[in-house]
Amino acid sequence: MTEKLDTRTRIVLAAMDLFWSKGFNSTSVADILSRTQLNAGSLYHVFPGKQDVLIAVLEAYRDGLYPQLLDPAWAGVDDPIDKVFALLDRYRWLILETDCAYGCPIGSLALELHEADPAVRALLAVNFTGWTRAVEACLDEAGERLPRDLDRAALAEFVLTTMEGGVMQARTHRDVAYFDRGVAALRQHFDLLLERAARGTQAA
Amino acid sequence: MTEKLDTRTRIVLAAMDLFWSKGFNSTSVADILSRTQLNAGSLYHVFPGKQDVLIAVLEAYRDGLYPQLLDPAWAGVDDPIDKVFALLDRYRWLILETDCAYGCPIGSLALELHEADPAVRALLAVNFTGWTRAVEACLDEAGERLPRDLDRAALAEFVLTTMEGGVMQARTHRDVAYFDRGVAALRQHFDLLLERAARGTQAA
Repeated sequence: MTEKLDTRTRIVLAAMDLFWSKGFNSTSVADILSRTQLNAGSLYHVFPGKQDVLIAVLEAYRDGLYPQLLDPAWAGVDDPIDKVFALLDRYRWLILETDCAYGCPIGSLALELHEADPAVRALLAVNFTGWTRAVEACLDEAGERLPRDLDRAALAEFVLTTMEGGVMQARTHRDVAYFDRGVAALRQHFDLLLERAARGTQAA
Repeated sequence: MTEKLDTRTRIVLAAMDLFWSKGFNSTSVADILSRTQLNAGSLYHVFPGKQDVLIAVLEAYRDGLYPQLLDPAWAGVDDPIDKVFALLDRYRWLILETDCAYGCPIGSLALELHEADPAVRALLAVNFTGWTRAVEACLDEAGERLPRDLDRAALAEFVLTTMEGGVMQARTHRDVAYFDRGVAALRQHFDLLLERAARGTQAA
């Protein structure tokens, strides 16, 4: 794009990358200034402190859920259960792109921040909830193929759990196979649920 | 106990708690000195740098797997599948003890450390592997009740995934119910596997 990004956007994009690649506590305001080539006055004019930058970053992740993550992951995918696994496959691609050093930016911040401000905590929770609600909508769409008594919201959270636990283990072992085995276990769980629902339908 | 702890042990215990409650990057050598009431010379005599303290902390977690975590979790529990869920219940207790701020010390370090030294990464991996091998041993003990083609090592990793993802979500939402729903989903997965194995046995 040719349009010059405004100061706020430049700061948020730089901070997203720095918090993700270095962690929040290890990123200094000087790092953000160096990356954006802004002076301190310009930054403090927009964001009084680093925590304000963090809030803007978490809002950007929240607002980017569909355009940045779900829309690309789901392009050309119609089946709602395939969508769940296409989303996980997007993380597999991120793991490979980073030589297996990938960490989920929200999950990493959730564990890194020990005395998080309530506004920060709320935005971390909102990011997780947006993700799980999108998965839950897929499960609702596939509802007739799943057991009737299934807690779909809980299963959507379990999909997030599988992603986060798989990312963490792949990063720790620097081996995507740890992520793959977690996704395969979830796939098996889905298959067992689909089978159980199909048996229930036959019996009825 | 009346015996005075040696300098090394005092540093490791203080650092375990500080790294866990504040994070590695947010813990300074001054924090460790303040907590242990040692002078810098005594600390540097034992540990040349903060990274050496981290290695000793990760070795202590590795060596504490059975005495600190598994033996208490499994006291009075005989059934191998009950042991898996008793281990998860130990984490539930830790979540409640910390007003839902609990983070797994190994998982948190695995995500916090962005340019970890190979020795540190290896010890993080060893901690995860020790945990999953202990769970895998339970699954082996329950082997006849589980499907014959089950990848038990992968299921043990999936138990770790459930713990880590559940801890992360409970901490983010400050609500143990997120952990509980993850464990319930894993319990359902185990029940479906046990049912499938039982059907296989009947058919044979």
